Amino acid sequence: MMVPYRERSDEELLSLLKGLNAEYEGYKAKKLNLNMARGKPSKEQLALSMGMMDVLGSQSDMCGEDGTDCRNYGVLDGIPEAKRLLGDMVGAPASAVIVCGNSSLNVMYDTVSHAYTHGVMGSTPWCRLPAVKFLCPAPGYDRHFGITEFFGIEMIPVEMTPEGPDIETVERLVREDEAIKGIWCVPKYSNPQGYTYAPETVRRMAALKPKAADFRIYWDNAYAIHHLYDEGDSLLDILEECRRAGSPDMVYEFVSTSKISFPGSGIASVISSERNLEDIRKQMSRQTIGYDKLNQLRHVRFFGDIEGVKEHMKKHAAILRPKFEAVLNTLEKELGGKEIGSWTKPRGGYFISFDGLEGTAAATVRLCREAGVVMTGAGATYPYGVDPRDRNIRIAPSYPTLEELKTAAALFALCVKKASVEKILDERGKG
Amino acid sequence: MMVPYRERSDEELLSLLKGLNAEYEGYKAKKLNLNMARGKPSKEQLALSMGMMDVLGSQSDMCGEDGTDCRNYGVLDGIPEAKRLLGDMVGAPASAVIVCGNSSLNVMYDTVSHAYTHGVMGSTPWCRLPAVKFLCPAPGYDRHFGITEFFGIEMIPVEMTPEGPDIETVERLVREDEAIKGIWCVPKYSNPQGYTYAPETVRRMAALKPKAADFRIYWDNAYAIHHLYDEGDSLLDILEECRRAGSPDMVYEFVSTSKISFPGSGIASVISSERNLEDIRKQMSRQTIGYDKLNQLRHVRFFGDIEGVKEHMKKHAAILRPKFEAVLNTLEKELGGKEIGSWTKPRGGYFISFDGLEGTAAATVRLCREAGVVMTGAGATYPYGVDPRDRNIRIAPSYPTLEELKTAAALFALCVKKASVEKILDERGKG
Repeated sequence: MMVPYRERSDEELLSLLKGLNAEYEGYKAKKLNLNMARGKPSKEQLALSMGMMDVLGSQSDMCGEDGTDCRNYGVLDGIPEAKRLLGDMVGAPASAVIVCGNSSLNVMYDTVSHAYTHGVMGSTPWCRLPAVKFLCPAPGYDRHFGITEFFGIEMIPVEMTPEGPDIETVERLVREDEAIKGIWCVPKYSNPQGYTYAPETVRRMAALKPKAADFRIYWDNAYAIHHLYDEGDSLLDILEECRRAGSPDMVYEFVSTSKISFPGSGIASVISSERNLEDIRKQMSRQTIGYDKLNQLRHVRFFGDIEGVKEHMKKHAAILRPKFEAVLNTLEKELGGKEIGSWTKPRGGYFISFDGLEGTAAATVRLCREAGVVMTGAGATYPYGVDPRDRNIRIAPSYPTLEELKTAAALFALCVKKASVEKILDERGKG
Repeated sequence: MMVPYRERSDEELLSLLKGLNAEYEGYKAKKLNLNMARGKPSKEQLALSMGMMDVLGSQSDMCGEDGTDCRNYGVLDGIPEAKRLLGDMVGAPASAVIVCGNSSLNVMYDTVSHAYTHGVMGSTPWCRLPAVKFLCPAPGYDRHFGITEFFGIEMIPVEMTPEGPDIETVERLVREDEAIKGIWCVPKYSNPQGYTYAPETVRRMAALKPKAADFRIYWDNAYAIHHLYDEGDSLLDILEECRRAGSPDMVYEFVSTSKISFPGSGIASVISSERNLEDIRKQMSRQTIGYDKLNQLRHVRFFGDIEGVKEHMKKHAAILRPKFEAVLNTLEKELGGKEIGSWTKPRGGYFISFDGLEGTAAATVRLCREAGVVMTGAGATYPYGVDPRDRNIRIAPSYPTLEELKTAAALFALCVKKASVEKILDERGKG
């Protein structure tokens, strides 16, 4: 039976550390150059969409279903068939969708920027307010936090649970504080945990009674159909729940094809109530004449409809599933029973969230890097890049090959062990 | 010999008007549906770029010249070969170029928005200032004015001349008023006149001594290589002139392929000094992971290099030139010697600027519309949509077929005559 590290004697730990150090030097000698930092699809996944490069050729009809010549100016908010495709990914009608450019991050940035410069549906622009705050379920997505930090918005961390953000805290804070204007959510296969918000959480989110009329839920449904297994998690439709709760305007949902077709060359959208969309269109009409309709058409011609997208996602799953399982198996085999870490077991999405002993995350990531494996920076999953307990690490298994990943995961587990032993010895004054 | 309208007797004009009215009713009976409102390429022009749909197929190498897989995340500011292609269009080195998304208008909006929310290279954000003003050479581009109006920036019209904006006024205003933060320029084949700034104007622009350290020239070089004739206008390189004048940071130049390949599916860029680009990248890095690199690659593969672009532009010119000439011939034939209007004779770009008698532009545009020909709204070429003399009309000859255009131009000339006679009679109390 495995004895937890903390229950081992100094002598046992020192001896263990000696072995770990030797093993670590062995890895260093291999001069690895691997990356588990970002949620990047692998080359094998990218190859799945190469057929999209053939659907629009010089002999193709370049008109959309309503006759629009997609090669020319016009159509501010997207061609109907692209709206339908993106809406179907989250169960929203085409009329609730605005199709934008190549990046949902950009759409989110623009949405926050617009509120900052012009307010939300006529509210005071945030730049004229003494304080603006966002709730940030944490650990969460670093690029969300990057946007709010850039606009000087105060970020309040809220604890994430397997059911979603600590909803009681969210309810209380938004009710009490008019400066709270938003909450960042990745509701399905959350970044980095892979948690899906429970129905109860979604209903209570929709039933929030914020003090600020311009409070919005920023619902980044980045992994809506990104299942690893045939039986995927299911998530309540937040727009529907908000309508039922009498707050149809309280949510902006963001959806894209970034991890379906090509990251950076996909199509992104914002999905919301008619009143919110009107507000967004007002700003968009000053910002652009229209987004890339040829790429919208290309996506629709390649996928056909939502069923085509779902079939496509099964191929992604077939590539990703063994990678997730390889990491999880390694973590279980190397770290199980040692009580030096816990980790999530996602059924979709792009990440595994690892919590080590307090005060070991930065050291673990540094050890990995020095041996040639780049992880997401420790702290990145928290607002301002500060993990108060220095324990969370995001693992992104998608990009390396399966073989590389096995090596990288083994090295990661080794670094966790080494950092943990050093930490425990340090606490005992034996470091 | 032609007798100017104003020198004709009441009786002559009333008789003339009777004939014009009959002719106008004849046009109305045709139930035309033509559009000379926007600078949209025609279908014939779009067809020139269809080969671009074949250069990236499912069997293609999708890597850029430095090995970047253009299908995946990354490369914030553009692939090197796309930077080079866009830079070469205006004589700038690739290192001075940031390649963005599908629309230079969007890049301009983002640049103004960024200054509004975060200032320019550390200056006070414009949203914190009591007043921000822009100089607006007028007549000018309505969508420029739309951006500044949206941000509550006070627009000060400056008279356009065939050599560019009235430079003495520009020099004096920027020297005196710290609230003036920018000037909108379309320096080559200007929108709507088709004027190209004279060397002296460019040099004096570059030598401006603005009171505001965050003053910038917004140099929208939209028609840099959009010649109608083999011998095109030439424009001094503003970045080079600004460097020489010791103000390398004073200009943002905007360049795109919108009217070269496909409007809405092209690539756009901002070109500037290294310090400005650093400032822009700081903001971009929060806004996006990167723009559409596949479309960047597609453009480079199709055009090859700047010589390929220039050859391509000759094909556009061959289609556009007869259209411009048809409009100009009609204007000369129908309006010459009547002293009821003057117009520009551009050697490139997308527009002809028409100045009628004072107080006739709105009436002329209305008459055209009621007979089935849509023109750019009267006033649109001025800040706030108000032409103080109500006389300027922008003519966009590109979109209709040559046959349609001849009809539309004849109707336009007729409406000018009718509105002019009515105006003169009205002034004489005979309306």
